[in-house]
Amino acid sequence: MSASLSSSTTGVDGPAFVSPAVEPPLAHGVVGVHIGAGQHSELKTPLYLSLCSRACAQATQMLRAGHTALEAVTEATKILEDDGSTNAGFGSNLTEAGSVEMDAGIMDGQNLLFGAVGAMPGIKNPIAVAKLLVEEQRHGLLPMGRVPPAFLVGHGAKDWAIKRGLPGLEEDKLISEKSGKLYKYYKRKLELYNERQVTKKVKLLPVEVINVEDEDDKEDRAPELDKPPEDDKVTDTVGVVAIDQFGNVASSVSSGGIALKQPGRVGQASCFGCGCWAQNKMGPRDQTIGVSTTGCGEYLVRTFLAREVALNVGRAEAPIKGLKNCMDSFANSEFLENVPEKLAGAVCIQFDPELQQGEFMWTHTTASMGVAFQTTADEQATTRMSRLPIGPNKCPSDQIKNTVIAIESIPFCVKSKEPKSFLSNNKLPLEMPKENGFLDHSTLPPTSAVAT
Amino acid sequence: MSASLSSSTTGVDGPAFVSPAVEPPLAHGVVGVHIGAGQHSELKTPLYLSLCSRACAQATQMLRAGHTALEAVTEATKILEDDGSTNAGFGSNLTEAGSVEMDAGIMDGQNLLFGAVGAMPGIKNPIAVAKLLVEEQRHGLLPMGRVPPAFLVGHGAKDWAIKRGLPGLEEDKLISEKSGKLYKYYKRKLELYNERQVTKKVKLLPVEVINVEDEDDKEDRAPELDKPPEDDKVTDTVGVVAIDQFGNVASSVSSGGIALKQPGRVGQASCFGCGCWAQNKMGPRDQTIGVSTTGCGEYLVRTFLAREVALNVGRAEAPIKGLKNCMDSFANSEFLENVPEKLAGAVCIQFDPELQQGEFMWTHTTASMGVAFQTTADEQATTRMSRLPIGPNKCPSDQIKNTVIAIESIPFCVKSKEPKSFLSNNKLPLEMPKENGFLDHSTLPPTSAVAT
Repeated sequence: MSASLSSSTTGVDGPAFVSPAVEPPLAHGVVGVHIGAGQHSELKTPLYLSLCSRACAQATQMLRAGHTALEAVTEATKILEDDGSTNAGFGSNLTEAGSVEMDAGIMDGQNLLFGAVGAMPGIKNPIAVAKLLVEEQRHGLLPMGRVPPAFLVGHGAKDWAIKRGLPGLEEDKLISEKSGKLYKYYKRKLELYNERQVTKKVKLLPVEVINVEDEDDKEDRAPELDKPPEDDKVTDTVGVVAIDQFGNVASSVSSGGIALKQPGRVGQASCFGCGCWAQNKMGPRDQTIGVSTTGCGEYLVRTFLAREVALNVGRAEAPIKGLKNCMDSFANSEFLENVPEKLAGAVCIQFDPELQQGEFMWTHTTASMGVAFQTTADEQATTRMSRLPIGPNKCPSDQIKNTVIAIESIPFCVKSKEPKSFLSNNKLPLEMPKENGFLDHSTLPPTSAVAT
Repeated sequence: MSASLSSSTTGVDGPAFVSPAVEPPLAHGVVGVHIGAGQHSELKTPLYLSLCSRACAQATQMLRAGHTALEAVTEATKILEDDGSTNAGFGSNLTEAGSVEMDAGIMDGQNLLFGAVGAMPGIKNPIAVAKLLVEEQRHGLLPMGRVPPAFLVGHGAKDWAIKRGLPGLEEDKLISEKSGKLYKYYKRKLELYNERQVTKKVKLLPVEVINVEDEDDKEDRAPELDKPPEDDKVTDTVGVVAIDQFGNVASSVSSGGIALKQPGRVGQASCFGCGCWAQNKMGPRDQTIGVSTTGCGEYLVRTFLAREVALNVGRAEAPIKGLKNCMDSFANSEFLENVPEKLAGAVCIQFDPELQQGEFMWTHTTASMGVAFQTTADEQATTRMSRLPIGPNKCPSDQIKNTVIAIESIPFCVKSKEPKSFLSNNKLPLEMPKENGFLDHSTLPPTSAVAT
């Protein structure tokens, strides 16, 4: 077991830090955060990045105080869940029925345990329930030899959490001003679509499943729909990845799911291997790898994206090359045949214990993705709103395979007392689009990422 | 698309078969069935095998009538769900709260689509809802560009099914005489356990999580608990795998979950890659492979058992060797550290289009597992209650790695007009236990399995 000193979920105000008996193997911990792959407006970018920064600060503060990676990612995820601007926890997308149902998953790289909740109502922080599921699994079998649950859904998940002391919440307490407005907007759009379908039926025209996003530009635009309630598209899943000073990695993911989803729908955040992955020893070099994904849940499930990123990074010569291979496979996956927009994103922290260095990497096929990274030696996080220069990644149907993928990384060192530059490791001999476009963003200056 | 002629879910009484324009590539279809890995009494074995046989008959009847593998596995699974003796559909294990919550998953090997429901109440046949989820995904995006759901849980899943014409069912209509009795028995056991814990607390003894199955032999046995209500242990998940005459494979899995489970608990049947797998082209020889798993859901999820079986079989020189490799990996998985009983089972149909031959295989680490296999050329199914000769696979904690694994297979040929014996392919050069025990059951005579 690691030197976890508290089972408190209340954050850094918990029990005081007691020096561990043995010196931690790493001089510093690291944390990476994302607030979802999507299409973020320029206007709101500073707000999003400030939020990422706050989540990093929370995690690093906890890591400095000796908390485990599992505790740090939980508390950082809570910051993201509690902010009404993300699609997780408070402010989650509403279902078609107007309810809030949240997914979340967390994985502990030390014992490889995973806990998840799906379509859960009425709890402020779904990630806290997922963490409790991991903690209870650590205690072994339940009375009568029953196996403790790893994955709970719906009201059963809520009741389980309440029995363990997490407070229940009234439905409307989870609806933010933004999510409420978006729901009304999209719900009205759907009604207009359905009304038109009825008219079509009367005319005996065939009823087709079409994309109102395009169609309503022609005929559906009602006066009250002239302006979307926000100037950016609904953002997606949030997630955190961290390595603590004892070398243990943990990952989290939390999501409100797609707007106007069918009640009961569960996405990748709840599915093992799909929403997050954390493993202390992966591949031939026993690397420490943590991943958190974002994008269209159904596609990430079909491709087990979180686990695949970790496996590919673990066995690649250069970590970022592994990430590229994985995203190429994703874009060309036989499991995504006929999918017009292969929307996905991921953050990944890789650390090589032998070389005592690692990389924080991110990738996305969406227009933008907000990320941040910090080590416990940094005063503040390095943030980035990563953008594809070409706008939304929406390909015509005859170009399904030409998904454009952005990949970028920040190298770091957590042991050395001397600052090191790893920039040379970070350059890939990238050739521009073959089947898939691949954008070689310039890397961030390493200074802020090298812990000395 | 395959030559599916009906979207009816009502079975072979649907629309009449219309001859396809092209000759089907296979002369015969095949189906394999399991009713769960567990501990089946000798007394009830004939009943269990008769049920397996009926499920096979239903599937082969449908395959002969030109229905798809997806349709055939659905209808065969309904037979298993409707029988009160299995832990799926009617007769499912009850939750700790006394409710019935069912999991089911289905995969279509032709388009690789997966549909699943989890912890779903009040629908007679969960597999029918899973199949509808696959069918709706085939139609592409929903209005407003929304991605159709693949995985629905709880009351949302039930409501979705009812909107599509499946009848809802009152709670108690899903409780069989057997499942009701078992619930009362186990619930009372749990109460006795809890009462003893309270006594212990009063005595200020530490409260430990222990296995009442063992403990109550010593002190907990109340008069009304002298005889368990059934003479065999609760059986597990059911599942069906089939290949139709067009060469398409489909797999299903359906489960009532573990006895006295936490409401909202979801097991492997609902998790992609864990409960079932079906893929028309796998590995270097483009084999057709279908898998359905059974056992302890949480362990099958952690090891992605269904997908791993398919991947291993697809790349192995001899299919059964692939299955052995996979089960060895399962028994030694780092994801099952400290798990005392690695309870699992699987059936797998493998077909090599080039050689025009295949194998129906099964494996289990539990005391017994009921299976059946039939081709459309066979008048009736070949059934087997496969048993470990050593009783329940419960290893002392210092022998965690010594899981005993049974593996057996029936070779078949679906094209040739002449009967062939593939027995020589079926013998593995097995060495007896190294790390894991491995039982080389004698194979069944191939006569019943060779379609002429």
